[in-house]
This record gives sequence, structure tokens and C-alpha cells, in this order.
Amino acid sequence: MSKRALTVTREQNFPEWYQAAVRHGDMAETSPVRGCMIIKPWGWGVWERIQAELDARIKDTGHDNCYFPLFIPMSFIAKEAEHVEGFAKEMAVVTHHRLKNEGGKLVVDPSAKLEEPLIVRPTSETIIGDAFQRWIKTYRDLPLLINQWANVVRWEMRPRLFLRTAEFLWQEGHTAHADRDDAMAETMKMLEVYREFAETVLAMPVIAGEKPANERFPGADNTYSIEAMMQDGKALQAGTSHYLGTHFAEAQGIQFQNRENEFEYCHTTSWGVSTRLIGGVIMTHGDDDGLRLPPKIAPRQIVIVPMLRDKPEDKELLDYCASLEKELKASGIRVLVDTKPVKSAEKRWNWVRRGAPVIVEVGGRDAAGEKVTYMRRDVLRDGDKVASHSLPRAEFVAGAQSLLDDIQGRLFAEAKARLDGSILSDIKTFDELEEYFGAAEAEDEGGEFKGWVSVAWSKPEGTDLKAIADRLKALKLTIRNAPLEQKPIDGVCLFTGEPARESVLIGRAY
Amino acid sequence: MSKRALTVTREQNFPEWYQAAVRHGDMAETSPVRGCMIIKPWGWGVWERIQAELDARIKDTGHDNCYFPLFIPMSFIAKEAEHVEGFAKEMAVVTHHRLKNEGGKLVVDPSAKLEEPLIVRPTSETIIGDAFQRWIKTYRDLPLLINQWANVVRWEMRPRLFLRTAEFLWQEGHTAHADRDDAMAETMKMLEVYREFAETVLAMPVIAGEKPANERFPGADNTYSIEAMMQDGKALQAGTSHYLGTHFAEAQGIQFQNRENEFEYCHTTSWGVSTRLIGGVIMTHGDDDGLRLPPKIAPRQIVIVPMLRDKPEDKELLDYCASLEKELKASGIRVLVDTKPVKSAEKRWNWVRRGAPVIVEVGGRDAAGEKVTYMRRDVLRDGDKVASHSLPRAEFVAGAQSLLDDIQGRLFAEAKARLDGSILSDIKTFDELEEYFGAAEAEDEGGEFKGWVSVAWSKPEGTDLKAIADRLKALKLTIRNAPLEQKPIDGVCLFTGEPARESVLIGRAY
Repeated sequence: MSKRALTVTREQNFPEWYQAAVRHGDMAETSPVRGCMIIKPWGWGVWERIQAELDARIKDTGHDNCYFPLFIPMSFIAKEAEHVEGFAKEMAVVTHHRLKNEGGKLVVDPSAKLEEPLIVRPTSETIIGDAFQRWIKTYRDLPLLINQWANVVRWEMRPRLFLRTAEFLWQEGHTAHADRDDAMAETMKMLEVYREFAETVLAMPVIAGEKPANERFPGADNTYSIEAMMQDGKALQAGTSHYLGTHFAEAQGIQFQNRENEFEYCHTTSWGVSTRLIGGVIMTHGDDDGLRLPPKIAPRQIVIVPMLRDKPEDKELLDYCASLEKELKASGIRVLVDTKPVKSAEKRWNWVRRGAPVIVEVGGRDAAGEKVTYMRRDVLRDGDKVASHSLPRAEFVAGAQSLLDDIQGRLFAEAKARLDGSILSDIKTFDELEEYFGAAEAEDEGGEFKGWVSVAWSKPEGTDLKAIADRLKALKLTIRNAPLEQKPIDGVCLFTGEPARESVLIGRAY
Repeated sequence: MSKRALTVTREQNFPEWYQAAVRHGDMAETSPVRGCMIIKPWGWGVWERIQAELDARIKDTGHDNCYFPLFIPMSFIAKEAEHVEGFAKEMAVVTHHRLKNEGGKLVVDPSAKLEEPLIVRPTSETIIGDAFQRWIKTYRDLPLLINQWANVVRWEMRPRLFLRTAEFLWQEGHTAHADRDDAMAETMKMLEVYREFAETVLAMPVIAGEKPANERFPGADNTYSIEAMMQDGKALQAGTSHYLGTHFAEAQGIQFQNRENEFEYCHTTSWGVSTRLIGGVIMTHGDDDGLRLPPKIAPRQIVIVPMLRDKPEDKELLDYCASLEKELKASGIRVLVDTKPVKSAEKRWNWVRRGAPVIVEVGGRDAAGEKVTYMRRDVLRDGDKVASHSLPRAEFVAGAQSLLDDIQGRLFAEAKARLDGSILSDIKTFDELEEYFGAAEAEDEGGEFKGWVSVAWSKPEGTDLKAIADRLKALKLTIRNAPLEQKPIDGVCLFTGEPARESVLIGRAY
């Protein structure tokens, strides 16, 4: 096997490869606080790009940003917990408001116990619903379309950077509508915003569809998701959009006076994506040399590495780099000249591992000959060798944006081909399903990546569905969603033998 | 007294006026969580503009954004508390990680007690310092220049929207340097960034200077601030920049190997501004009709109100508004056509109270005659009447950006004149000081607003300083700062009678 920039390959051990890619890509690291991560500048830069791109879409669709408190009174959660079965209860609970020195030791002051414990928000449905109840008076106030960018906390027993952390960052949209049609239209609109965003900005192909009843957000009438396929074949739920019916409105008294002056409950929705998307980008595009960032979210799209030698000629090199930087910036490209006091070969590989889309190395001959020698991170190698390209400077500058667009498109096409080629649709019985996935029992330690299967089913609910979910769970499988784009169905349900109603995707998941 | 858009004037009761301005300006409201606020879309829009403008300046000066955990282990705070006298101890303490249902009632699960309590960050010095200690190895890693935008929590007994809330939003910069000179240069650079930002973007004149020793951030060698004067004459500390010496580095082991391969402690700095700035903007510019937002931070700079009458002619009006909106947007102006189903007079006053810099009212005659009738929020009235202006449409559009610049400049000039005119410098004895401020004992309930006094002092430290601070405290006064721009000093210290060394500003404060 040939040498790559990470010490472990995807094939050898995908989870370890992921950790190495995150660490050597300078994206994030674990913190001294269990389950909480430190997002480093390069990782944060990606999140800033994600926020900017998605926020523009959220605003373009008529939503206003707000900010609600970090804490939720326990009584609010209790109200929720009562009417929602299976409500998650692992939460960070604030019980005291003071520390004091006692005999030179810092302790929690027992006299500063809160009358009512406060919960660090795991999501803000209840506190936002409480405001909606105050803000909404008549049909003129509807629809009310709110979003917030916030940190949330859910205690996690097995944290993994970006994918599952106790604290994570997200946006949560919350909207209230006069009727079901309007709320459903909103639910589907935001699902489509997520799909378009994931595919266009993250270059991450997804399948949008409806979650089965057992995978719904507690309290939702319908839950929709976009599901992305990671390179190990597992699904990553990358975004969700919920139609909540009038459940939350009834629990929180969110009513409006209609045109006939009668009071009605609002129909509400919620939808969100989180820093988990970054994990999705890494596992969609990364290779054995590290990250490959889509240009649209790369904090720096072109990195220029001057090959300095601690000699007087360095000045000329740096001038050349600076003028190249200036030209590229003028065409709106995010560019960096890396002048850190580190050897240039080391810099090159640092930027390869970080996934900078284009890496330019400037030596004496480039400066003298007005040339630009560069690498594309999407097709870094030709065989085992690093492929470097050279262009006259003017030509490189003139074509730089097209080059980035080409990289963006190529990353998407590659991932799309993998997704399309990794959904099996000829499995007709549970035995076949078991046989197909069973072999990948130890899926974490290499072996063939399975992808998903598309099966026809009769859309059972209640205990029938639960029984199916349990059988799948024994194989570590879940129903991901019923894609919105359905082909005509015939035949019978793989689980019940009854006439099939739709096809669903089944796979392993993060 | 003539009628104004708020029911209470600044003169009648400044604190009540402030509350009314915030509430009727749709900026924020109190939440069901004690001391925590809900920032509403209009207020959040202001914060987004503040973030964007300041973030660009923070990046331009070479800083990288990161994100660190919300929680801090109690042991980190203990380390801090030991070496820092007067460490604030009112904090939100997380002690448990689960809620459970017990007999149909939701309770904190006693079996889910954390081994070590977690503190919701009141500031991130310790957790960031811990990372610095791991990240910094040699002089090549310095300076390390980090910033984060985050929510922080400090328990507040007397919360006030934006000015003092349990949870607030801020940016906190943390940097490490090889020596004192470099760290001091950073400290002063960021103070100047804040000054320029406050004056240019917020149109809020400030005085930059050094805090006296008793007002330093615990653990800092030097603390600098920008101080703004509110319309009631009180000071608002609007931003701080600290040179922390090697105290934090020693407490946390932040060392680097110098060029001679010896280990040295880093010199660190920190600096921050918060959502409190929004309170400062309101109390600097607001008038008895509500907010007056500087155009650079107004979420919408020009608001167009079509005077609809539920008649067929409305269509023509709306078309005219839409094309005006399009033209203004094309020149980069943030514009909104308010088509809400609310009476146009009500809309006008809503936008007056929210402080939209320019309000355009479009009636049939404007549309027919290609005219634009508008109000400037900075000079809303001529006497008691609302002053409305009219221009040919093309002229209005062509001059819109200049109009906004003019409003921005006028708001600054007005506040600057007030600041300059409200600093008294002829007070030479403590008795005079007492007499001057004493009369304003009940300063919250109207009466003359006093402003600040500039006095010469000998810069005492230790117990002498404490005695002075106590005397001032009895008059509800504090030393705000010693301005960087000092005039030549002669004479003696107002407090000690010793030769004066510098002049300091004294006033009441938020």
C-alpha cells in the first residue's frame, strides 16, 4: 500500500480514519469537558460559511432571527414530558447559582439552591412556544416565522466530534400557521431548502423523505429528513423538518382569533440542522490524505505556499505571492499566503490534510517566469504521485473561479455517483436483508461498505411497526426515510406480506 | 407638554423611558427565566450588524475565531479563584445530567449527579487558557490570536434588558504573546478597535482610558475601557481590554520555548464587548419618540409604508413601492416595504419607535407624481410637528446613501457635543464634588443630569485608593478611567493633596 497523508485509511478503520481526519485537518478537538468539543479556527471557518449560506436562505424564505434564553424552567419541560411519550431526559440541570470558598476550597453554596431547577436547552420548542402564545393574537399575526442560531446541550454517553457532542451548535426554526396546509407547505419548503443547501453548498447529495412513525420527533405529526450516505455506507441524518400539528399549540395555549373572531389553535412546525453537517462533509468528501472541502465552505479556497529558503531571494517570492493574492482577492476568492515559519513541504501537507481546494506552491522559477504551479485537492494524485499543474499567471487568475466551480461540481458528482450506486433495490425478503447486512457485523473494522437497500413496504403503524423496528435493530438497521421521489410500487411488503404502499430506505446510521 | 410616541419622557423618568423604548422599539423583552432576555427580530438585527462590523475588524487585525465549550469544570474555576482575590462567584452551576418521571412528576434524578459540577461559562479565560497551554510549544506559535462569539452567564440580582442580564452575548478575545511589549501593543490595538467601532458604527462617542487599580479585571495588570455617556449623564462601560501580564499563564502553565530553547511564560490579553452595547445605543440616541438607530446598524435603513386603503388603487401604490425598493436595494441599502395588514398611521409610529433612520410614506399622489415623501428619524420634528420632506423619486434614490451618511454623522455629532459639554473640569475639592453630585441624589426620578467631572489626582494605590473609592461610593460615584488623551496636569490631587499625576473621569455609572 502506498503512503498517504493520514496514518490510517478509510478501508482499514473508518472511525479511526474519521478521528484522524478531524484532528489532522485542524477542525476540532476534544475538551476537558466530557462530550464538549473545541472547534478550532479552520473548523469554525467552515461553520461560518455554512451559517452565512444557510442564513441567507432562511431569510430569503421570510424568516426572522431571534434569540431565546439558554435556560428552560423545569416546569416547561414537565408540561412537555407529560404529553409526549419517550421524551429525552438526559439534560444538563442547573440547580445552584453560587460557588463559595469554604476553608480554602471552592464548593457549591447549598444556600444558593434555585427554587426551580433550570435546564440547559436541549431544543427550544417550549420556551419559544411560550413566547408565541404571548405574541400571537389574531390571524393577522400569522404566519409567524422565527429562527435562531444557538448552542444546545444533550448529554451524550458516547460522544464523537461533530457527530454526537453534548454541546452542539445549530439553527432551529419555529413557525406558527393558521391551518394545516400552510404549516405543511412550510415544513416541505424548509426540507427543500435543506436539500438544495446540502447539495449545492456542501456538495453532499441527500435523499429527502418522510421518517417512519417510530422515528418521528416526539410530538410531531410528520417528520421529514434529508439523509446523506457516508463513505462507509452509513446514513447520516443531516437535517429534519417537522409538522407538529396542533400538539404543541394545545400544550402551550398558542391560539389565534380567526376572521370570524373565533379562537383556534395554531399549526406549528420546527426544523433544524447542526454542526453535525461538518461531520457529514468530512465523511462524504475526505480521502486517505485528509479532508477535501468543497470550495463554497472552505475558509480559504486557495492557499499560496511560498517556498522560502531563508535567503535574500525570499523577498522576491513574497512579493510575487502578495500580488497574486491581491489579484485573486479582487475576483472575490478567499485566499491566504501561508508565511508561517515552517518548512514548505510541511505546509503543503498541512493544507492537504485540511482540505484546502487549491494549493499553490511558489518557487523561484514561478516568480521569475510569471507562472503558477498548483495542486487540486479533489484530484490530488495521479496514481500514487501528487499531480501538480502549471499555468501562466494571468491564465490561472482568470480561470480561478471556474477552477473552484469545477472542484465543487466534481466533489458533488463523485459523491452522487457513490450514493446512486450504493442503494440496492432487489432485496425482497427479510432473510435476504439479514444475509446482505449480516456479513458486515463488525462494520467498524473495515470490510465491505454496504450502503442502503430500498424496499417496498405496506407502511404499518403501531405495534406492527414496533416489531419491524425491533427486528431491524437486531441487525443494527433502521428505516431512514420514505423518499419523496417514489417510483411506482408493485408487489408486497417485505415485512408484512401485505400489498406494498411505498418504498423506504434501510441502512445503518450515525 | 406636547405628545410624544412614548408615554414617558427621558426627563420624567429615565429608567422607565429606557424600558418603554426597548419594549416599544421591539428590541427585546423579559423571559420567563429570571434575568434572561428574549431578543426580538429587530433587536437581533441590530446585534447581527454589530457582529458583522466588529467581526470584520477583529479578523482584519489578524485574529481567528474559535468555539470553546459552554461548560467549565469547577476545578478550573477553583484554580482561578485561588490566585485571584475578589473572583465573582455568582454562577450557574450544573450538578445533574438527568430528569426522571417519579410518580408522574418530573424530578432531578439524584442518581445522575455529576462527579464534578460544571459551571456555565461566565467568561472563558480558564478553558481557553487550558487549550493555549496545549497549543503553544515554541516562539513560532506566538502570537496566538483567538476570538470567540458566545453566550455567557452571570447571575444578576437586578437584571435590566441589554444592560445587565443573567445570560448575555459577547465576543471575547484571548491572545498570548512572547513578551510584555507585544501583549501591551495588542491590548491597546483592540482598545482602539473598540473606540473606532463605537464612534464610527454605533455613532457613540467614547473616551478610551485606563481603569484605576480598584476597577481592574481580577488578575489583570492593566485594564482599559471605553466609556460612553448616556443621556442621563451616567457612564456606560462599553468595552474593556486587559493586559493580564503572566498571571494567567503562570496559573495555567502557558509556556513557550524561546529562541534560546528556554521556557518562558506567555504574556496574555483579553478583551470583550457585549449585547450591552445595544443598551448604550438606545440610551445615547433615543428620544421621547423612541429609538433612533444609526443607519450602519439599523436592520432596515429605509422603511417604505404604502398608505393602502383597501381599494383597487392599492395595486398601483404597491407597484410603485416595489420598484422604489428595487432601486434602493440595488444601491446596497437595506430597505423594507411594510405591507402588514395594519393601518398606515400605526405603521408610521411603529417605525418611529423602532428608530428606522428613514421612513417613506407612499400615497396616491407620490406614485402618480413620481415623488418620495419621507421623514428623517434623527430630526423627526419641527417644533412639535412631524417634519416631512418631498423629493422627485430619482433625486431621492440618487441621494439615499448620502442621506443615511448624513443621519449617521448627525447622530454622532449630537452625542459628541453632549459628551464634550457634560464634563466639568473646574472642581478642585471633594466638598465641591459632593455638592455637585449630592443634589442629584434621587437621580433616577428626573432632575438635572450631571455628566462627569474630570479631576486631577496623584494615582494612589492600595489602601489609599480603597479609601477614595469608598468615599466616592457613598456618593454613588466611581472613577471611570484615566483618559489616554491627557492634557498637561498641574496642581494637586483632589483626594490626597499630593502633586497630581493625571486626570481621571468621575461619574455615576450603569
